[in-house]
Amino acid sequence: MRHFLTTLDWSREELQGLLDSAAELRREPVNHRLAGKAVALLFLNPSLRTRSSFEIGAFQLGAHAVVLEPGKAAWGIEFEPGVVMDGDAEEHITEVAGVLSRYCDAIGLRAFPLFKDWSVDRQDRVIKALAEHASVPVINMETIVHPCQELALMRTLQDHLGQPDGRKFVLTWTWHPRPLNTAVANSALLIASKFGMDITLLIPEPAYLLDEQFMDAGQRQAETAGGSLRVTSDIEEAYTGAEFVYAKSWGALPFYGRPDEESSLRASFRHFMVDGAKMALTNGARFSHCLPLRRNIKASDEVMDADYCVALDEAENRLHVQKALMLKLMDEA
Amino acid sequence: MRHFLTTLDWSREELQGLLDSAAELRREPVNHRLAGKAVALLFLNPSLRTRSSFEIGAFQLGAHAVVLEPGKAAWGIEFEPGVVMDGDAEEHITEVAGVLSRYCDAIGLRAFPLFKDWSVDRQDRVIKALAEHASVPVINMETIVHPCQELALMRTLQDHLGQPDGRKFVLTWTWHPRPLNTAVANSALLIASKFGMDITLLIPEPAYLLDEQFMDAGQRQAETAGGSLRVTSDIEEAYTGAEFVYAKSWGALPFYGRPDEESSLRASFRHFMVDGAKMALTNGARFSHCLPLRRNIKASDEVMDADYCVALDEAENRLHVQKALMLKLMDEA
Amino acid sequence: MRHFLTTLDWSREELQGLLDSAAELRREPVNHRLAGKAVALLFLNPSLRTRSSFEIGAFQLGAHAVVLEPGKAAWGIEFEPGVVMDGDAEEHITEVAGVLSRYCDAIGLRAFPLFKDWSVDRQDRVIKALAEHASVPVINMETIVHPCQELALMRTLQDHLGQPDGRKFVLTWTWHPRPLNTAVANSALLIASKFGMDITLLIPEPAYLLDEQFMDAGQRQAETAGGSLRVTSDIEEAYTGAEFVYAKSWGALPFYGRPDEESSLRASFRHFMVDGAKMALTNGARFSHCLPLRRNIKASDEVMDADYCVALDEAENRLHVQKALMLKLMDEA
Repeated sequence: MRHFLTTLDWSREELQGLLDSAAELRREPVNHRLAGKAVALLFLNPSLRTRSSFEIGAFQLGAHAVVLEPGKAAWGIEFEPGVVMDGDAEEHITEVAGVLSRYCDAIGLRAFPLFKDWSVDRQDRVIKALAEHASVPVINMETIVHPCQELALMRTLQDHLGQPDGRKFVLTWTWHPRPLNTAVANSALLIASKFGMDITLLIPEPAYLLDEQFMDAGQRQAETAGGSLRVTSDIEEAYTGAEFVYAKSWGALPFYGRPDEESSLRASFRHFMVDGAKMALTNGARFSHCLPLRRNIKASDEVMDADYCVALDEAENRLHVQKALMLKLMDEA
Repeated sequence: MRHFLTTLDWSREELQGLLDSAAELRREPVNHRLAGKAVALLFLNPSLRTRSSFEIGAFQLGAHAVVLEPGKAAWGIEFEPGVVMDGDAEEHITEVAGVLSRYCDAIGLRAFPLFKDWSVDRQDRVIKALAEHASVPVINMETIVHPCQELALMRTLQDHLGQPDGRKFVLTWTWHPRPLNTAVANSALLIASKFGMDITLLIPEPAYLLDEQFMDAGQRQAETAGGSLRVTSDIEEAYTGAEFVYAKSWGALPFYGRPDEESSLRASFRHFMVDGAKMALTNGARFSHCLPLRRNIKASDEVMDADYCVALDEAENRLHVQKALMLKLMDEA
Repeated sequence: MRHFLTTLDWSREELQGLLDSAAELRREPVNHRLAGKAVALLFLNPSLRTRSSFEIGAFQLGAHAVVLEPGKAAWGIEFEPGVVMDGDAEEHITEVAGVLSRYCDAIGLRAFPLFKDWSVDRQDRVIKALAEHASVPVINMETIVHPCQELALMRTLQDHLGQPDGRKFVLTWTWHPRPLNTAVANSALLIASKFGMDITLLIPEPAYLLDEQFMDAGQRQAETAGGSLRVTSDIEEAYTGAEFVYAKSWGALPFYGRPDEESSLRASFRHFMVDGAKMALTNGARFSHCLPLRRNIKASDEVMDADYCVALDEAENRLHVQKALMLKLMDEA
């Protein structure tokens, strides 16, 4: 049995196998290979793409997805071990994992960090607790990484650029009214480095560096795969020659849990928005974003409506890669 | 590709085709003509019948319905073009429409008006924005019209009265504690006029006239089809000789966005409730309502429990007409 | 047509038939005996197990479950007859039952008591109103009893103990931060007495006696089936020789609707938590709980993680017994 918690646990070859399977499923979307099987999708946070694509994907394979929202329509869950549970949570992850493992053939979880203490959140304890207690595969639907998004991004990259090795990938921070999760940024770094790309991380200042566990992994994977990773605050330099521009906003980790201070820092960086002028500096780059995206905040209407914007392709690929993943994890045959 | 935004875009013959198909599906409810297909149902407002009937209807045709609630379990959506999205919405309808068009074979939307500015709401911009950006058929699940309800009403009318032309149809306003959407009233007017009925619109005073775009369309369609449309405030006159009584409450448009003033106006009209005495004036009329209905507010227990009440038949027909609609819009074969 | 509102309406033989069918479905979980059929699941309260197990169970039989949450994503419902509906509810159970009976082949309802007036809540009016107006079978998904849980408990008991007659069953009250529903306690009493067990009800003081309608039924059924029912406050005496320990917390009925007073009474009874020392007094008893369970409040980690804890088995059996129930109620063939 295998979990899908982070691509760090999966080799490039294994991930490519999923991407190849996704391309096949895109050509032939409906089969019955998971007939009678079920997957539980636990959402602690909102979702449109993830929910739709997993639910429809399961259906197209003959399976059924149950969507559960603990703390809303389902009971609140405690994730820490050994606790005297006299707070809000009515149920421990041990039992949730145990019960759903009896009903289902896989469990997906979306659990965003709590934005209070990064030294806790960076450990990704919630999904690790689920995986520890589940006896069926656990799929990360976004915690502090978003590995399903990584697969969709890499499928899209390969669809548009072919072989990713040595291609110039820019991951640019953008402004947003709130300090967002670093998950997709961490993930973009992980997957681009795993596949040997030449990565430029564009951030307005050092406070926007990603957590060192991901910076280090990106560096290490880039070296292994023959790619590279550099960090810059120079917008023009970053965009020049780029072949793929990927945008994401996130909060500065040194100010984690202090949103007002972070907001002041962030306020002067609205000009990091991706616009037509910046894209004109690239080497005919494609642009993408994981969505949801605030238009004219993270990227201009011009960029979003341009032919080089492949965000919808990436969103569509969520469906295909997740079906490949469910087949890999849930199909014993 | 065809949308189903309003019956104004569909001819009487086309609508009758859907009604005939609905009758067939009522006899043989289960098939696999939409096997492997998916429809997304976006609810910005509550639903019982619409959700159940679309979800079960899709299932009975071999398809799958995904229910999404933007702003609650899914991200909030911005519907206006060109906006700098620094408000609450995390996502623009352009991307929502684009993504769901990649996952699904049709998209349903329920988006009630906002009750602030009728000059805006009357344009029905939200569903038009969705239809503009979707590359799959869009189905109106109630905005400022409710065309699926129109089909169910006309299916029920024909089941009970046969040929609708020239039959006496009374659309009566009723009191309700809150100023409700005019959608179902607009729609009753549209479908009854399209099918050549003799329509009496019973309202307590001129402030309760429907928007002129619907009054005009009703007049125009009545003329075309050989029916008629008159307005009265005389309860006895309206009910006398009626063959079908349809009740709905709605807020007075001149007071739109000023609920306290509208409430004062409305307060003296509680006697418009449909009751046994009023129904006794009719020519053995059937009574119906779109539901949900507050008993002893819009209609008395006596009326709701009478044999002539066909509201459950109409509700049931939602299932059949929507299946006919999905087959028409989603079945390429 | 048959409802499943309480096991009091079903004979031991009929219930054993469901349990036997459940065991078969556990061995062969997937079939198409309910192909094309639908069940509506109305949740007025949260759920994880009930929702998942009904939804997946329906799927594994070829049917579809629609999950509705009145008052949240669906309209609020009025359950009292004859009311002038000028309060919050937009719809009466008469219409909800009528409409869902047109769309579905069965309706499940979860409606916890309101904790205001036990003389009202003890009548279980809400589900009775639904059953009265529905023309399809109604399934109790927990009101003031939880008969689906009863089936799961008895399936688990038989799996682990074999023939239940004369086996020593301890139903122990435990502390909890809030005064909970008595439903599962009532149900444990009903099913254990129906199957002739020797029942000990362990409560900290007489205020925690269950409602007399259930105490009486337990006594009556125990006599009929050759079992027994006694009440004690002596922890050591209760556990000694037990073969099955079942824990549940509930609020003291004499203090119903006065949570602060009840809380003071309850405060001194935290030591009723099930722990290893208590379990060591038993005759190698199995332990179970309906879940959700607060660890180290109702039962210690030691108990929950022990081999003798069969709570996950009981949770799993929810799936199997409910499938047996749906087949019994929905399968005309």
